[in-house]
Amino acid sequence: MVFALYPGSFDPVTKGHLDLVERALPLFERLTVAVAINSSKAPTFTVEERVELLRAALPADPRLEVATFRGLVVDYCRQQGIGAILRGVRTVSDFEYEYQLALTNRHLAPGIETVFVMPSVQYSYVSSSLIREIVRNGGDAASFVPPVVERRLRERLRPS
Amino acid sequence: MVFALYPGSFDPVTKGHLDLVERALPLFERLTVAVAINSSKAPTFTVEERVELLRAALPADPRLEVATFRGLVVDYCRQQGIGAILRGVRTVSDFEYEYQLALTNRHLAPGIETVFVMPSVQYSYVSSSLIREIVRNGGDAASFVPPVVERRLRERLRPS
Amino acid sequence: MVFALYPGSFDPVTKGHLDLVERALPLFERLTVAVAINSSKAPTFTVEERVELLRAALPADPRLEVATFRGLVVDYCRQQGIGAILRGVRTVSDFEYEYQLALTNRHLAPGIETVFVMPSVQYSYVSSSLIREIVRNGGDAASFVPPVVERRLRERLRPS
Amino acid sequence: MVFALYPGSFDPVTKGHLDLVERALPLFERLTVAVAINSSKAPTFTVEERVELLRAALPADPRLEVATFRGLVVDYCRQQGIGAILRGVRTVSDFEYEYQLALTNRHLAPGIETVFVMPSVQYSYVSSSLIREIVRNGGDAASFVPPVVERRLRERLRPS
Amino acid sequence: MVFALYPGSFDPVTKGHLDLVERALPLFERLTVAVAINSSKAPTFTVEERVELLRAALPADPRLEVATFRGLVVDYCRQQGIGAILRGVRTVSDFEYEYQLALTNRHLAPGIETVFVMPSVQYSYVSSSLIREIVRNGGDAASFVPPVVERRLRERLRPS
Amino acid sequence: MVFALYPGSFDPVTKGHLDLVERALPLFERLTVAVAINSSKAPTFTVEERVELLRAALPADPRLEVATFRGLVVDYCRQQGIGAILRGVRTVSDFEYEYQLALTNRHLAPGIETVFVMPSVQYSYVSSSLIREIVRNGGDAASFVPPVVERRLRERLRPS
Repeated sequence: MVFALYPGSFDPVTKGHLDLVERALPLFERLTVAVAINSSKAPTFTVEERVELLRAALPADPRLEVATFRGLVVDYCRQQGIGAILRGVRTVSDFEYEYQLALTNRHLAPGIETVFVMPSVQYSYVSSSLIREIVRNGGDAASFVPPVVERRLRERLRPS
Repeated sequence: MVFALYPGSFDPVTKGHLDLVERALPLFERLTVAVAINSSKAPTFTVEERVELLRAALPADPRLEVATFRGLVVDYCRQQGIGAILRGVRTVSDFEYEYQLALTNRHLAPGIETVFVMPSVQYSYVSSSLIREIVRNGGDAASFVPPVVERRLRERLRPS
Repeated sequence: MVFALYPGSFDPVTKGHLDLVERALPLFERLTVAVAINSSKAPTFTVEERVELLRAALPADPRLEVATFRGLVVDYCRQQGIGAILRGVRTVSDFEYEYQLALTNRHLAPGIETVFVMPSVQYSYVSSSLIREIVRNGGDAASFVPPVVERRLRERLRPS
Repeated sequence: MVFALYPGSFDPVTKGHLDLVERALPLFERLTVAVAINSSKAPTFTVEERVELLRAALPADPRLEVATFRGLVVDYCRQQGIGAILRGVRTVSDFEYEYQLALTNRHLAPGIETVFVMPSVQYSYVSSSLIREIVRNGGDAASFVPPVVERRLRERLRPS
Repeated sequence: MVFALYPGSFDPVTKGHLDLVERALPLFERLTVAVAINSSKAPTFTVEERVELLRAALPADPRLEVATFRGLVVDYCRQQGIGAILRGVRTVSDFEYEYQLALTNRHLAPGIETVFVMPSVQYSYVSSSLIREIVRNGGDAASFVPPVVERRLRERLRPS
Repeated sequence: MVFALYPGSFDPVTKGHLDLVERALPLFERLTVAVAINSSKAPTFTVEERVELLRAALPADPRLEVATFRGLVVDYCRQQGIGAILRGVRTVSDFEYEYQLALTNRHLAPGIETVFVMPSVQYSYVSSSLIREIVRNGGDAASFVPPVVERRLRERLRPS
């Protein structure tokens, strides 16, 4: 049985991410949702806040854990004895990028396999960046993110 | 732990298919490679021959079995208690077709998830139909199919 | 104000087609849903049956009519004083094919514009051919086609 | 009959934009070309300059007006009683991005439909950013933008 | 300096093909336009007719010749001392198919390189099959094929 | 016979670039690998360093030279009497971007043709940016770049 990693920036976690976790959970013995620490981007939420929102939004399940990692995804997998990387694909652009990443990771760590699952079609068109754009412009993101995230997004991006 | 189905026409099995099986085998408790019985196509090999070639080419592994099925993939999965459908994706065209198929299957059977794995890049450009075309025109397909299949393809498509 | 044509084979009409008609209807003064008479294909339903199913499935609306045409779409538009061709696009493959068709039609008839609308995301992955495949294999197509079409499909493709 | 909005950054307006307006104008009762006020980007021309260039380049037509808007496109449409959003698509990448945007807008405002029209093939490969790049490097953009824009682009990007 | 082969079915030759030949001619010492003899398809014109139409439509140039070949493209190249295969790409679907073909040919004959050139944008949306469809339906194909081909197409596809 | 230009940022040169040069060299009388001087980007290596790494990595061949250029590619080609622009394409996204660029360049300089060659499949998924990311995160890039580049990348991106 295999341990899996679901890496991402989760800035913030969306209903699309949660849907993917729910679909993938039965496939693995343990699933670690891991926030990548990437110093070069300017995120909306800090790594700590993103972890906290993930913890609040994810279902309580002994097979599920939240973590952070720095450096290459495959190095983290090797340290943790993780054999599969989980990724969602929604669009052709997603697919091409994920394909290149998966082949690069396979080259760097031949024993670790990337596994793709498709999110529910009702979340297929929403990305974290589109959601931030909606909230920044005064729109309602409640259909795209869980309530706790929706409130925090409004506080962060629409302060006045 | 999950039982998985790798459905296809396998007319004939290629090194790309074998590579995918090898990659996916550690992810599942049991993996059934299943030839779809589709009366409307004119195949190169009969269903029985395709099963025989799969048996000859696949590694001996207690988790691995070969089967045939008629009708909807999801109906066969439900009958057999299978929770995951395995598919390989290599190209954008593959991806779009598989995406539509996966969403249709999810609608028909919500509890069964389609899981995508990418074949090795060295097999990313070969399909069964391209291989048949090569053999039919006198080319050498030994890099693309296992020896037993290569011999049978030559006999079938280049008889004289 | 503009008259529009929604051409297709409609073999048979799906909920995706109906959704597109509903979305496009407010945009035009009159919308003609027209079955292309194409002698080279082997359809599941005759042209007459397809027209009958369209009539049964489409809402009663004075702006909406059902027709058939033979020959080039643009010639029919010119005969009928129609200034816009309506088409749905769901996937990248759809898009590329429709793009080539639209540019060819524009070249043949510069005054007639092709207009694209996207069907509801819940119908984005279903095509008439996938639906026929489902019914032929004993699956339930009731979510994808209106009741009258579902019954006729079962009679036609699953007679015994 | 429907009022339509053609939103964009128009930095600056190109012959491709003008071609699209000309094609779409007969389809609608009124067409508003609207510059999105987006504080986060560093534009080449100010919003006022972009409006001025649009006014200079667009044909005089009572159905056509130029505007600016802040916030969500769909909120502006609702305020103005606009029922259709016009967008041009030229490439597969355009298509995927526009598809996601259109589905998001439909979710936020179900009664407003996005309508796609294809620009003339001779403008299918030029974008505002490519045009700026050409002028910045001393190239001649006269085939891609109207004369008034060409002069202003040269002044702005090639001052010495 | 390199000899090149431009293989295809040319059923019939279009202005897009001629444009590609004109663009590629300066790049090579000799360019052979070669009709693939493919017994499994039902062509509109015989191989002999297609060769005749190519001869009539191509410019007189000592570097240019017309030929036919049977079997694998790379085998023909090797027999003729040809080092490059010329192909046109217009769309993403073209690209994916040609990519797979080029990688397969490279595997079969490592010393022979496939070279891609893009046809003029005004021919980017026309294919031989679309042209046949236009003529069959009574449309005018004179903008897409040279006069000699246009006449022959009309005789063949619109006999009455 | 034709002189060709292979323009790029080469920040730094990869095995994919070297593979493309090796494949394209027999096709041309002279091949100039040229680093574009682009003041607006923040490169990892200076133009001088990139030229130096190209000189160290490229094979010694009288037909091959390294250069730099400022401004439009087509202006540089005209100054140097170069008739062909060489570009590699690996993915659909590459293809769309290169297609737009090639058509723009053709419009600006009708006599200069862009020629596409595909890199070896084993380098099809690696880009300079992905390689920089690997090295920055402590990964091993030795399979993707020549030894001299690998050492310099480590010094530059992993100083401590």
